[in-house]
Amino acid sequence: MFRHVVTFRWNAESTPAQREALGAALATLPAAIGEIRRYHFGPDAGINPGNFEFAVVADFDDVAGYLVYRDHPEHGRIIGELIAPYVETRAAVQFELSD
Amino acid sequence: MFRHVVTFRWNAESTPAQREALGAALATLPAAIGEIRRYHFGPDAGINPGNFEFAVVADFDDVAGYLVYRDHPEHGRIIGELIAPYVETRAAVQFELSD
Repeated sequence: MFRHVVTFRWNAESTPAQREALGAALATLPAAIGEIRRYHFGPDAGINPGNFEFAVVADFDDVAGYLVYRDHPEHGRIIGELIAPYVETRAAVQFELSD
Repeated sequence: MFRHVVTFRWNAESTPAQREALGAALATLPAAIGEIRRYHFGPDAGINPGNFEFAVVADFDDVAGYLVYRDHPEHGRIIGELIAPYVETRAAVQFELSD
């Protein structure tokens, strides 16, 4: 399988309402994008100082499945409306998932 | 469950030998730390420019399990010898894993 990991730090424009709307919007993606095998996201638990603030981890059968997700219009809408305007820093990795 | 996500960019001191040794060392942790439920890591696949270079995703029953991992001496040894000297940037998030 193939895993996509992304974490964010929010900028000063970020609000509780935006973060709530983002969670609700992301929760619709597994039903909208059939290539998603597992999908988890959430705010940082606040245990460790210096952490980023939000993570998304998405699993696919293969790279092709990930690319469908990456380029899916509904995903793009969420990025454009609920993520991009509020991102201070972003860190992403995609990697082969052994098992 | 509870998920720990961390991604790294390596600095100029990083070498292929260090990255290989790191993978081999991390692979020993699930057997060494019983609290680990799922453990995956790997180098970035090189699909997207601007990505970080390496990811680790570890799942635990709860926060307490994660803390055992975070503070485990063998984990600390690996961080001290094979990660910390080679990190340019680090991004981590821990979050509650719905299911």
